[in-house]
Amino acid sequence: MTDMPRSINIHEEGPREGFQIEPGPIPTADKIRLIEALAETGLHHIQVCSFVNPRVVPGWADAADVVSGFKARPDVRYTALWFNAQGLERALAFRDRLHITGSISLTASEAFTRKNLNRSHAENLEAMRKQTALHLSHDVPVERIGVMAAFGCNYQGDITPAQVISTLEDGFTIAKECGATIKHISLADTMGWGAPPRVERVVGEVRSRWPDQTIGLHLHDTRGLAIANAHAGLKMGVAQFDSTVGGLGGCPFAGQKGAAGNVCTEELVMLCQEMGIETGVDLDRLIEVGRMAEEIVGHVLPSELIHAGSLGSFRKRAA
Amino acid sequence: MTDMPRSINIHEEGPREGFQIEPGPIPTADKIRLIEALAETGLHHIQVCSFVNPRVVPGWADAADVVSGFKARPDVRYTALWFNAQGLERALAFRDRLHITGSISLTASEAFTRKNLNRSHAENLEAMRKQTALHLSHDVPVERIGVMAAFGCNYQGDITPAQVISTLEDGFTIAKECGATIKHISLADTMGWGAPPRVERVVGEVRSRWPDQTIGLHLHDTRGLAIANAHAGLKMGVAQFDSTVGGLGGCPFAGQKGAAGNVCTEELVMLCQEMGIETGVDLDRLIEVGRMAEEIVGHVLPSELIHAGSLGSFRKRAA
Repeated sequence: MTDMPRSINIHEEGPREGFQIEPGPIPTADKIRLIEALAETGLHHIQVCSFVNPRVVPGWADAADVVSGFKARPDVRYTALWFNAQGLERALAFRDRLHITGSISLTASEAFTRKNLNRSHAENLEAMRKQTALHLSHDVPVERIGVMAAFGCNYQGDITPAQVISTLEDGFTIAKECGATIKHISLADTMGWGAPPRVERVVGEVRSRWPDQTIGLHLHDTRGLAIANAHAGLKMGVAQFDSTVGGLGGCPFAGQKGAAGNVCTEELVMLCQEMGIETGVDLDRLIEVGRMAEEIVGHVLPSELIHAGSLGSFRKRAA
Repeated sequence: MTDMPRSINIHEEGPREGFQIEPGPIPTADKIRLIEALAETGLHHIQVCSFVNPRVVPGWADAADVVSGFKARPDVRYTALWFNAQGLERALAFRDRLHITGSISLTASEAFTRKNLNRSHAENLEAMRKQTALHLSHDVPVERIGVMAAFGCNYQGDITPAQVISTLEDGFTIAKECGATIKHISLADTMGWGAPPRVERVVGEVRSRWPDQTIGLHLHDTRGLAIANAHAGLKMGVAQFDSTVGGLGGCPFAGQKGAAGNVCTEELVMLCQEMGIETGVDLDRLIEVGRMAEEIVGHVLPSELIHAGSLGSFRKRAA
């Protein structure tokens, strides 16, 4: 229990994850409205868009308009996502507005790397080496290694902590070769294989191996255990979480694989509140933004809390 | 960790909770089909209906037809719910098919008792005293005290462990006066106020006070933390859970209070599997029944796992 953090950092990914998957089109003005509302809740890190090929992800064809359109708050870091040199170039055009950092993004499952990127693990390492060098050549710091499928994979099955560590070692080798100083490790439950005992094992082993790195969790709710996994992470001392308002990022069509989004930001904040862990977020404001997100996408979102209301609001009424 | 149970008992309440809230009408044959399918999954306790006033709960106007209609398995206990003498009488007509036991049902929140039952706590105690005596006079054992709103209340706010214990003491007084031997305590998070630290505190204090009672949890997912609360309960040694297949029991209309159902049986079973705790349930079969439930009610159910499929099924494919 002494491992529990006093406060956590939340990286809100709702706009980026949500708007890329919605059948849309979502008006640019609505995307901007959501980003500006999120920035008023006390969230300090918001991922606002993907710079990706608009033919592949039409939902982000307006990425540049979104980034140039929102009114930025000085106390909020706005981030974006990209996967290649063209994406980086588009991001760099907004150096004044975006917090631009690079990441060495690897996958603990070679089967997923092949399926998702059409590359072998070795080819992916080579691609990441090039991308890291490219970032550094633009004075973009690369301080983070991300491991996808860190808790299991629909194509490869279980992933052992040793496989996660080996993947991270590959990432550290790339960082060393390129002269990057890694500070953060992010472990992603990309396909919803995590359960609390597995989270405890993987986080524990990674922390033992790299005690000076901060560890972050990116938890998809594919099988309904994301909030239990977040709780397990908090008890292990994890103080960095990605999450999405309303649970954005799920597939809006019933009965399809991958229907679930990320762990909901509101539910993560409520969990922290009840555990005495600070998030800096005004939960009632965030719930209002969750309801706004639901209105913007035009369908019910997975978050239960935005439908029920916060305990705080009921405590006030009952007092 | 040594508190963790080796196995748990699940009381499947999907048919009862689900069909009472659906706008329906759900054909009697579909209710029977779901009950029979649930009994093939390895579940040993299934609550099949409510004997309630059909003018108030039209979804259970066909309770008698359902109970007389399903093919019973000898290794499954089929239970029902009722709230008064008329309901008990209707249940007793099925003594050969139903496992009929009584319960002293109290609420830790007087505000909720007034709102829900239009009674003071004292009036409710008197009603429970009469009901307990009535059950015993029909040779129906009363071995359980249930406490609703044991973790908080939308009308009264936070509920302390001391209030839960005081409510249970009232129940034990009734049991003693009536000559009932209590073996089980059930703590219900009726309005979704539970979070892991609160579950740990309440379960811990109740167990210290009554170490020989088995403790059960009934967890609504109103604010999205039900599975994290179940995990906290498991780690505290709780080995009795109510749950509903697919998360049945929620309100199918978007944006309404009480939209969430109970903790999903499938997700509870998956959690237990990953923790090495036996449930006796064949998860893949149960997922099929969750999909059947979704087809019967005609809308998407809250369970993520029925949409994603079990880890076991993907392990097989990956092997």
